[in-house]
Amino acid sequence: MEIEIKFRVSEDIKERLESLNAKFVGLEVQEDVYFDVPLPKLLRVRRISNLGKSYITYKEIMDRNNEEFYEVEFEVSDFNLAIEVFKRLGFDVKASIKKERLIYKLGDVTFELNKIPGLGNFLDIEVISDDPEEAKRKIWEVAEKLGLKKKDVEPRLYIELVNELSSRSS
Amino acid sequence: MEIEIKFRVSEDIKERLESLNAKFVGLEVQEDVYFDVPLPKLLRVRRISNLGKSYITYKEIMDRNNEEFYEVEFEVSDFNLAIEVFKRLGFDVKASIKKERLIYKLGDVTFELNKIPGLGNFLDIEVISDDPEEAKRKIWEVAEKLGLKKKDVEPRLYIELVNELSSRSS
Repeated sequence: MEIEIKFRVSEDIKERLESLNAKFVGLEVQEDVYFDVPLPKLLRVRRISNLGKSYITYKEIMDRNNEEFYEVEFEVSDFNLAIEVFKRLGFDVKASIKKERLIYKLGDVTFELNKIPGLGNFLDIEVISDDPEEAKRKIWEVAEKLGLKKKDVEPRLYIELVNELSSRSS
Repeated sequence: MEIEIKFRVSEDIKERLESLNAKFVGLEVQEDVYFDVPLPKLLRVRRISNLGKSYITYKEIMDRNNEEFYEVEFEVSDFNLAIEVFKRLGFDVKASIKKERLIYKLGDVTFELNKIPGLGNFLDIEVISDDPEEAKRKIWEVAEKLGLKKKDVEPRLYIELVNELSSRSS
């Protein structure tokens, strides 16, 4: 299971991550297309344009705080054809999200620092584990070292944030 | 568009194909999983086990004889995960079909000689074209050279043949 807590952060989180000795793993320029499936299910086709890779990802949210996910993901050879198949099967596109992601690792903790135009900067701290409580303890241990607090947690999904943004601006 | 006519054939069709100078392209050991989507739509995940490749294929049947198909296909990195995603999205498996396919080419005509346990041997003669009538003319021209006649045409889909077989034997 994927355990992940999302924090609203400021740009200087990068220096704090590096002073924690988290190892920079890579940059991903991501384009996510989410389809309209009923929550707690999530269906996404992602293109990582700077790496030339695309993925189909299916998730089921397992908890009320959007922190525990069952995830199935596999690579696909063509972003647009994958989107076309889901559309032709009757799934509507719910939202498209573009983000720039810096990825860091520290032991088995993964940090995804996302810059999303119009929404701001977010740090997803993630651990893959069958023990959600132990995983969250680990996540909070490093989060506190980064100076992050409960009030910085953003419980909403990216897709919810993007949809709120577009309904506010329309 | 994919234009394809399926014929019931006997084993000796292979020699006739070779005497036509059709070029042998390759052998594929295929495992197809079809999902229960309403006709004229078809949704399939295919593993070509001897090549270590898997594909998601979506088709729409465009005519009454199952000869004209709109097709979208892309490669996926994991056969089982692709099946899992469709199952979790609510699609039931309708049928699984295993076949051994010999592929031949002659110009822009593709011959797929399929041996399906329990069902027999079938030759799919295929042309990719935006002109179905011209494509069918081309297909019948080579079909006649192979000694194939109207009565040899099998208009049913493989998925229909397999489902008839399993309902007869149950």
